[in-house]
Amino acid sequence: MKTIGIVANKGKPAARIIARELLYLFEKRGIKVYLDDNIAGELGRSELACPPSQMGGTVELVCVLGGDGTLLGIARDLAGCSVPILGFNLGTLGFLSEAEPDNLPLAVDQLLAGQYRIEERSMLQAALVRKNETLATYTAMNDVGIAKGSFCRIINCAVWVDDQFVATFRGDGVIISSPTGSTAYSLSAGGPIVAPNVDMLLLTPVAPHMLTARPMIFSAEQVIRVEVDAVHQEMGLSIDGQFGYRLEGGDVIYVQRSPHVTPLVLWNTGSFYEVIRKKLQAEWE
Amino acid sequence: MKTIGIVANKGKPAARIIARELLYLFEKRGIKVYLDDNIAGELGRSELACPPSQMGGTVELVCVLGGDGTLLGIARDLAGCSVPILGFNLGTLGFLSEAEPDNLPLAVDQLLAGQYRIEERSMLQAALVRKNETLATYTAMNDVGIAKGSFCRIINCAVWVDDQFVATFRGDGVIISSPTGSTAYSLSAGGPIVAPNVDMLLLTPVAPHMLTARPMIFSAEQVIRVEVDAVHQEMGLSIDGQFGYRLEGGDVIYVQRSPHVTPLVLWNTGSFYEVIRKKLQAEWE
Amino acid sequence: MKTIGIVANKGKPAARIIARELLYLFEKRGIKVYLDDNIAGELGRSELACPPSQMGGTVELVCVLGGDGTLLGIARDLAGCSVPILGFNLGTLGFLSEAEPDNLPLAVDQLLAGQYRIEERSMLQAALVRKNETLATYTAMNDVGIAKGSFCRIINCAVWVDDQFVATFRGDGVIISSPTGSTAYSLSAGGPIVAPNVDMLLLTPVAPHMLTARPMIFSAEQVIRVEVDAVHQEMGLSIDGQFGYRLEGGDVIYVQRSPHVTPLVLWNTGSFYEVIRKKLQAEWE
Amino acid sequence: MKTIGIVANKGKPAARIIARELLYLFEKRGIKVYLDDNIAGELGRSELACPPSQMGGTVELVCVLGGDGTLLGIARDLAGCSVPILGFNLGTLGFLSEAEPDNLPLAVDQLLAGQYRIEERSMLQAALVRKNETLATYTAMNDVGIAKGSFCRIINCAVWVDDQFVATFRGDGVIISSPTGSTAYSLSAGGPIVAPNVDMLLLTPVAPHMLTARPMIFSAEQVIRVEVDAVHQEMGLSIDGQFGYRLEGGDVIYVQRSPHVTPLVLWNTGSFYEVIRKKLQAEWE
Repeated sequence: MKTIGIVANKGKPAARIIARELLYLFEKRGIKVYLDDNIAGELGRSELACPPSQMGGTVELVCVLGGDGTLLGIARDLAGCSVPILGFNLGTLGFLSEAEPDNLPLAVDQLLAGQYRIEERSMLQAALVRKNETLATYTAMNDVGIAKGSFCRIINCAVWVDDQFVATFRGDGVIISSPTGSTAYSLSAGGPIVAPNVDMLLLTPVAPHMLTARPMIFSAEQVIRVEVDAVHQEMGLSIDGQFGYRLEGGDVIYVQRSPHVTPLVLWNTGSFYEVIRKKLQAEWE
Repeated sequence: MKTIGIVANKGKPAARIIARELLYLFEKRGIKVYLDDNIAGELGRSELACPPSQMGGTVELVCVLGGDGTLLGIARDLAGCSVPILGFNLGTLGFLSEAEPDNLPLAVDQLLAGQYRIEERSMLQAALVRKNETLATYTAMNDVGIAKGSFCRIINCAVWVDDQFVATFRGDGVIISSPTGSTAYSLSAGGPIVAPNVDMLLLTPVAPHMLTARPMIFSAEQVIRVEVDAVHQEMGLSIDGQFGYRLEGGDVIYVQRSPHVTPLVLWNTGSFYEVIRKKLQAEWE
Repeated sequence: MKTIGIVANKGKPAARIIARELLYLFEKRGIKVYLDDNIAGELGRSELACPPSQMGGTVELVCVLGGDGTLLGIARDLAGCSVPILGFNLGTLGFLSEAEPDNLPLAVDQLLAGQYRIEERSMLQAALVRKNETLATYTAMNDVGIAKGSFCRIINCAVWVDDQFVATFRGDGVIISSPTGSTAYSLSAGGPIVAPNVDMLLLTPVAPHMLTARPMIFSAEQVIRVEVDAVHQEMGLSIDGQFGYRLEGGDVIYVQRSPHVTPLVLWNTGSFYEVIRKKLQAEWE
Repeated sequence: MKTIGIVANKGKPAARIIARELLYLFEKRGIKVYLDDNIAGELGRSELACPPSQMGGTVELVCVLGGDGTLLGIARDLAGCSVPILGFNLGTLGFLSEAEPDNLPLAVDQLLAGQYRIEERSMLQAALVRKNETLATYTAMNDVGIAKGSFCRIINCAVWVDDQFVATFRGDGVIISSPTGSTAYSLSAGGPIVAPNVDMLLLTPVAPHMLTARPMIFSAEQVIRVEVDAVHQEMGLSIDGQFGYRLEGGDVIYVQRSPHVTPLVLWNTGSFYEVIRKKLQAEWE
């Protein structure tokens, strides 16, 4: 490995400290490092600056300092580039990012020696169509959410898979998740936990008005189509819970598996289930 | 019984037809009838017009034509007046309103002969406090909802009963319901069904981020206090899912049992559980 | 098509009537028919008798009269034979069996004209190992259940997928389901609805003592291993909820996808989701 | 306070050690102590032996060493005696029993100085009637469970409150809980958390076959009647999950609030919600 990118959440002071140490450790070992614009400035190394979305064709691995939220954004930026991503969750374990190593030099040596495994995580792609015009397309790592606004009346989400009508889910909305997203918002709404290597799309209704509604698992080969409707209601589309688009009645959202995957770097030890056990053990604070 | 009020949902054409027939049947039997402003105009009887909120001191019973939603509003208007309310649900059975009778003249005779029972339904009162100032107070029949906006990040609802801290519910929000409200939004969010004669307050978290969070039942003698917090988020307070107030971080909402009850008129036949069975049987449409 | 088998649930009088009519309709069209022993006797046609488990190598299609329960048993009997199975649910729609046709002669003509589709349903295979000895092996269409007895203390089910430890589920037990089984017992225990064409194994804990436990979706390429433990407790293994084996502490159950599939015959009209909608609409009786 | 009883779970070695220390501390302060038969023998003080069920009329407070399970049994033994019970949970916090104090002499002084509060926990009484004959009556602290055996087919529990039919719950069974029992088996089956001071009865269906079935809250003034039915099925009635009775089709179980309450001794600090937070935080092990 000859080139590595480092991206840091500038809102977290610890991220800058680790970024500086990683930069030092990598350069000492002869690695060419690129830094996201922001951290490059903070570390006084503007000559290494590179926007994360352009790291794809430049580096062989990206280190993300700052937790699952930061990693989700970078994974979307790098969708299609096949660049492995290693998350360092500052202080705690994330679902996607490894806990910050106790011994950073050792961790760097292991990384450069290839002592890690890569788990390919499937992604979603979504398109928003209004009056037969595609207004926006998105790539998501976790989920595509369709939700009512904060004032209470329900919205209707009519769902099809390919050309088969499934049901109209009346309620707070629906979430369409990748396996990776099954442990995010969908889990709060009552969805199952899905192992990363299962090919499927998960649709989870949120507070459904019909009590027999349940989370549903569809084939990853199919396209989910959701048509939304509501009277005098605010509705929104959101991507990984991070940004979105205001919806109008009659809007159609198409969601399917993305052709891209995110290669997630994980230390050799541990497993998906170990992360699940650790994360779910500590939830009530 | 000498005076009766009639209120109709003007959005439903059938309501006007039944209002006209009820007016005819009551007047034929020597009952003084008052009509809500809107239906009085539509029936050409403006001399009988009376705003629903003023029927409280005037009539001995109010007939509501138009379903549970219409009835919820009238129940709030008449809170504290102890006037029995009879709902005629147009076409279908409601949780609160009786199905429209097949034989309306017979139903009117039974009503005037006292062949009905009254079920007293407890109500909620809520106050919204911002920076130590009470911005608004409300009476609710079903529930007080605190909810995030349509873009996805979670809100925090820290909950106390009297002076005891319960938990901080992170997620889409919380619902505080009366027994009557247990079959409304709370049921969609996973809450239990509560018989109308149980003294309690029900708090149901919506899509809670901590998986061990559960609906909770508190004593009706206690005051629930919710302090909301969110970063750059839209949040709203809603009353019976019908109207509300935009919330800001740090806002405090107090919810407790109202001193008022709604006397609901029900035909002698049937029971709360029969309504539950009928309503839940037909839910998936 | 030249040969057809007919199997009927002898407990249901209507099954005999339809069996007689189908026999008449098929023979009139020159089809060689085989009947299960019991119905052959009842119809006075003992010369056509053939045990269902031997129909596999003999007939081109098996008609099952009597509902999903009857069909589950025949599907297990015929596992590995690749014989299409058509269920006639007497009076009502089943998840697996079509509603009894209004016009049986027309239905028979359509069947012989190939106007139907086949949905291949994946099956499970299970092995029970005690002290390193395999006591029994099973094929299941819906699910493999591991459950405590009627006296209350919990049992422990330690679960692995391949060599990865997942968790120890303490509670009433666990259910491992095929996609087809997702609408059976697993649904009652809170599991998701899985489309028939998804490759996965579904594990649903029943009344889990740890509140963060959730239904889990594993790859169909993996083997689930469950080790059960309980002190002075009755425990049982059950196959499709129909029969089983008494378990002892330390017993190990292996469950994986079966090499066999069941070719289910369905009329061209309709879809999996239409069946779901119809079945779940009518559930509260 | 002049007389105190001590009961210890003989299966837990730590219980004997604490029993010895408590005996020493109480006697040093001039308190007359009674010990349950078993621990009296183990401590070589047979002259102090007294069966727990007879401590009711003899002592002013009972210390229970050994966890919630042990305390449940003693609470049933002492039902109707109004003797306060203090549980010492060995090593961990229980829902009903306080964590073992770090400083036992100090705890004893506080106890004798009245530095504690008493929370009255309502109990249940149950009767099993077969062919109009009452076969058994029970007092329960947590719950009365009706459950199917380990082989899988469902049982039917037809439920009435007073003379009103509620529903027939088909599935694994039903649990009827006191507020205290809401955090026991009912919680695993999806029930709400009920504060100890709420007057109600909680009925929670286990793995209900009808998906719209929900936990239900009834008035504590009413009597719940359950009639069970099953074909060729094992069914059992259990009390606090600790012992029970084999049921037959047609058996009727009556459950209502007991006239007795258990006075639970709790240290002044802490609240019910603090216990809930601590217990639910640590659940996934």
